[in-house]
Amino acid sequence: MARIVKKFGGTSVGDVTRIKNVAARVAKAVEDGHEVVVVLSAMSGMTNQLVGYCREASVMHDAREYDAVLAAGEQITIGLLSICLQDLGVPARSFLGWQVPVRTNDMHGAARIETIETEALEKCLSEGRVAVVAGFQGIARDNRIATLGRGGSDTSAVAVAAAVKADRCDIYTDVDGVYTTDPRIVPKARKLEKITYEEMLEMASLGAKVLQTRSVALAMNFGVRVQVLSSFEDLPGTLVVSEDEIVEQEVVSGIAYSRGEAKVTVVGLEDRPGQVSHLFAPLADKNINVDMIVQSASEDGNRTDLTFTVPEDDLARAVEVLESNKEEMKFLDLVYRAGVVKVSVVGVGMRSHAGVARKMFDTLAEKSINVQVISTSEIKISVIIDAEYTELAVRALHTAYGLDVTTEA
Amino acid sequence: MARIVKKFGGTSVGDVTRIKNVAARVAKAVEDGHEVVVVLSAMSGMTNQLVGYCREASVMHDAREYDAVLAAGEQITIGLLSICLQDLGVPARSFLGWQVPVRTNDMHGAARIETIETEALEKCLSEGRVAVVAGFQGIARDNRIATLGRGGSDTSAVAVAAAVKADRCDIYTDVDGVYTTDPRIVPKARKLEKITYEEMLEMASLGAKVLQTRSVALAMNFGVRVQVLSSFEDLPGTLVVSEDEIVEQEVVSGIAYSRGEAKVTVVGLEDRPGQVSHLFAPLADKNINVDMIVQSASEDGNRTDLTFTVPEDDLARAVEVLESNKEEMKFLDLVYRAGVVKVSVVGVGMRSHAGVARKMFDTLAEKSINVQVISTSEIKISVIIDAEYTELAVRALHTAYGLDVTTEA
Repeated sequence: MARIVKKFGGTSVGDVTRIKNVAARVAKAVEDGHEVVVVLSAMSGMTNQLVGYCREASVMHDAREYDAVLAAGEQITIGLLSICLQDLGVPARSFLGWQVPVRTNDMHGAARIETIETEALEKCLSEGRVAVVAGFQGIARDNRIATLGRGGSDTSAVAVAAAVKADRCDIYTDVDGVYTTDPRIVPKARKLEKITYEEMLEMASLGAKVLQTRSVALAMNFGVRVQVLSSFEDLPGTLVVSEDEIVEQEVVSGIAYSRGEAKVTVVGLEDRPGQVSHLFAPLADKNINVDMIVQSASEDGNRTDLTFTVPEDDLARAVEVLESNKEEMKFLDLVYRAGVVKVSVVGVGMRSHAGVARKMFDTLAEKSINVQVISTSEIKISVIIDAEYTELAVRALHTAYGLDVTTEA
Repeated sequence: MARIVKKFGGTSVGDVTRIKNVAARVAKAVEDGHEVVVVLSAMSGMTNQLVGYCREASVMHDAREYDAVLAAGEQITIGLLSICLQDLGVPARSFLGWQVPVRTNDMHGAARIETIETEALEKCLSEGRVAVVAGFQGIARDNRIATLGRGGSDTSAVAVAAAVKADRCDIYTDVDGVYTTDPRIVPKARKLEKITYEEMLEMASLGAKVLQTRSVALAMNFGVRVQVLSSFEDLPGTLVVSEDEIVEQEVVSGIAYSRGEAKVTVVGLEDRPGQVSHLFAPLADKNINVDMIVQSASEDGNRTDLTFTVPEDDLARAVEVLESNKEEMKFLDLVYRAGVVKVSVVGVGMRSHAGVARKMFDTLAEKSINVQVISTSEIKISVIIDAEYTELAVRALHTAYGLDVTTEA
């Protein structure tokens, strides 16, 4: 017998028929002898509808009232799932954020979970009942409902799993696991049986949008074993676990890519302390997210070139901000271009293996793909290339690192 | 400055545009210097949608889960109204049932309010803010959401008004007040400026569906002054108050009627103690609501005729129940007919005025309308007549008791 937290997203509970499917799946786990806590999102579409109402009411809506409105979505699905489970003869009861309670800070609309009291949940489980918990919501110190922000249900699930010391947290999504790369580009992409938290973090933030980055970080901190699996098929998914659970670590676990990037080079920037932060401060003020930053060596010790990437959609604003501060920032020229892509090779194994970077550059060179920017971390290497080479680069790298699926008997 | 509770129903908060209209109306009261508590229903249609979901989930749904699902409706409207009020510069905050808290018993789905704690509401008002309270819901002893049953928002409003000792409870509806009779039948019907609780109870239960009977009874018990008024026009409505507030009481305040009645006569019932309750017990078991009951004098002291009314829709079942128990109940025959109507003359003034009943019978006789059953209480006289005479009877009585509107300069 295991204790399992199961989280289902908005698509999985999009209507009552689907909620019944979720109930059947949960009933199966209960039949198998497991203790189950379910965490749910709102029906797909419902959250958008409620957000729309709030916007129509006022563009400057009070975050506490917005939270009260939005939290109604999960209230509906947890009640309905409890009814469906009971209908299958599975004892169940729903828990709203304030009933658990899931205590958060007072940052309404983007609250952080502080503690989850487990007494009520433990009592429910000890009575042989399924606890059905509203994701995305908690109760703030001001005794009002607080939501965790978009995608917060994954975070709720992992936090609940940590609190009740669950053996596993199953996150049901519309994909059946984490792949070595995007199967739409590489048909030979393999579903990973296991992946480490660190790799998952790199994969997630690089555009392989399977799990919320925030929930992966939480799982890593509390050592919660997470499984990503399909809500529509009955197959094992991918386990996201700590490194020591993976006996034979591959050097590279996956190839990620992120389209819609733009590259900006500030030419001839005066090379003196504080100049870089001086450059990025106005961008941060405008909420422009700067990603890769590479500074080239200064030739004469006085001036330097600085290259960074921003989301393509923010390029025009970024250029405007920089141009308007050109005098003050003392740089000579601005060169920029949209239509670039970031391709990354990710793997905890590369820590102990030399030659991973070299293989990447060799592979891209063989295909005559020009590398424009390079950035590395302990477990990943990212390059910026022209967007038109995306598929070619991803496929070549996938093969080069031996990730292609092998046809087995 | 007065303290006013304002209740708006589902039609008044049917979409965000209408919620903005409600906000404007509340803002006006605040500008006029009043302290305001607002009680809201869910958006019209929303409650039905949520009930539909629950039914689809299971025909035998857990009332506690049903309550959690349904209570989401008011959660949405109170958040939205608070946002709209703030948008108009009126400080406001929403209160869910458990936040007030409105404490109820554990009868989920049809809970009764036990107490309303006023500390949080008083604090909100003392800070110069509007308190926006979710109607229809409270928190039961089991720490779970309980709903008050259909139409419970009127009851919530009156209960909140009693708790915060409001000067008045305004109930906004789709009619602009209480009329002497149905204006669709009698164009000369007058809007009443005031009506007593007792009369309102009789009018409400007789088919003048303006206020929930339950909320009127509550208002009477706690002496809450209730005003019924239109949510779409800006006119004073009808005040429902205690008798001593009405200086010049008219003898008759209104003529009510109730269609869809059926009459059943049990002929030759054995006249011995307990026989009547013996007759009605199986009807009650089948949830058939018996209304007027009249027993004719027994001729020989052994057998009697008993006539009663039931809703037309229940007639077939009522007859079936009685026939199947005919042997046991020892009656001779059963005579019944649908297509009758109950017409009532209501007025607290008739207590101290003789001749009210006589005027009724004279008026009906003049129009050759046959009275089939008569039943009286302290403040009303009801008769059963053929449905085809409904309009004729109501109009004639309305004129006879001097209720027709008089054209004034």
